[in-house]
Amino acid sequence: MRTIKLTLEYDGTQFSGWQIQPSGRTVQHVLENGLLQLTNESIRIMGSGRTDAGVHALGQVASFQTNGKLPVKAFKDGLNGFLPQDVQILKAEEMDHGFNARKDAIRRTYRYCISKKQSVIGRQYSWYYRQALDVSKMQSASDYLVGDHDFSSFCKADPEIDDYISHVFDVHWTEQEDGFCFNISAIRYFRHMIRVIVGTLVQVGTDAIKAEFFKNILDAKDRKFAGDTAPPHGLYLVQVEYP
Amino acid sequence: MRTIKLTLEYDGTQFSGWQIQPSGRTVQHVLENGLLQLTNESIRIMGSGRTDAGVHALGQVASFQTNGKLPVKAFKDGLNGFLPQDVQILKAEEMDHGFNARKDAIRRTYRYCISKKQSVIGRQYSWYYRQALDVSKMQSASDYLVGDHDFSSFCKADPEIDDYISHVFDVHWTEQEDGFCFNISAIRYFRHMIRVIVGTLVQVGTDAIKAEFFKNILDAKDRKFAGDTAPPHGLYLVQVEYP
Repeated sequence: MRTIKLTLEYDGTQFSGWQIQPSGRTVQHVLENGLLQLTNESIRIMGSGRTDAGVHALGQVASFQTNGKLPVKAFKDGLNGFLPQDVQILKAEEMDHGFNARKDAIRRTYRYCISKKQSVIGRQYSWYYRQALDVSKMQSASDYLVGDHDFSSFCKADPEIDDYISHVFDVHWTEQEDGFCFNISAIRYFRHMIRVIVGTLVQVGTDAIKAEFFKNILDAKDRKFAGDTAPPHGLYLVQVEYP
Repeated sequence: MRTIKLTLEYDGTQFSGWQIQPSGRTVQHVLENGLLQLTNESIRIMGSGRTDAGVHALGQVASFQTNGKLPVKAFKDGLNGFLPQDVQILKAEEMDHGFNARKDAIRRTYRYCISKKQSVIGRQYSWYYRQALDVSKMQSASDYLVGDHDFSSFCKADPEIDDYISHVFDVHWTEQEDGFCFNISAIRYFRHMIRVIVGTLVQVGTDAIKAEFFKNILDAKDRKFAGDTAPPHGLYLVQVEYP
């Protein structure tokens, strides 16, 4: 049994998210279908984490096991031949047995992009926000996220989860020509966590919420104090790191 | 009878081009359908020019006539409410009777974007070109296009056209972070003209064709001397000017 690690990119626009579901086109399904065509094996893929419908990935990681004898590069170039234009494998590596893209990940980096300019070109790749945003205030508020925290205020309740504690390594905003990006690295995330954080931070950026009050929202551990959930199409899974 | 001029933006990805046709989703059809819903009138729209399937517009111009009494701003904000996400009106103006978006245009500017980096994100907005390109050579060759010329070498034959003569005002390449854009302003264009020019210029950029030989191709007035037609999705109609 061999273990393969894939690093891949996808445009989430036409996907109902990562995870296979009874109906809807998903990234996992498209990959497993491509692997079936390539290898004639029915292979189950494990992603580093699920992404919602509309969320993009620049560096998602997935792992699977195979009994086949194909050279590892076939899982990049060969597999790409069986994939649609909106998913492409960037790298395929053979790993020690037991590698698991989800369980072994130690740091995941996401980016959320906000556009100041409304345009139909690229509308599926950033969130157009009409009001002016003060990035320095959003950065001040974001700084409270770094470290160990209970993120109950910033996620959707999930019956499969015991606690909402994670460790955030780094948070920073970058300015682009036509907008801003929120960059966050953490051990793990909960449902809609980054989208709720961004939906709250824009209220800090417009002065509807004071930056210092953002800490109170975090401490409240109650979703009802945070802002609206930002739309999925501004969000990118950028990188997943392993020991 | 009032004459209205619209300036509009569209993402060509999901369109079978500008012009209404028996089957396929077209920009003209979507606009006329939106106008029907807004005004209850069956209105025929005239575009400044047709764009092919997959070609985008940042500033297409169209004109139409109406008997209605709606304020002119309804043809921007009101009409946008009846349009899909991939077409939006940027400006609506009331014109003197007789204004015609196609016949009155005196200068049309297009841009063709080439990407050096392959990515699924934004793949529908530029042409990924694998080989390294020397922009200074492409600029030297492009300079031959400026002025009055017969562009027979750089277009698809069109039975509706008497001659292939146009005047090119300006041609210049710009460099972006991940690629290059070819910018061209001319009185008029013929079928696939910019795409054939770009498909030939990349061969100059890779040294497959000498920049000086590009002039011979232009002078030959024969399509078979030029290069392949570049794909539509790198092309943008940027601006249309009127006296």
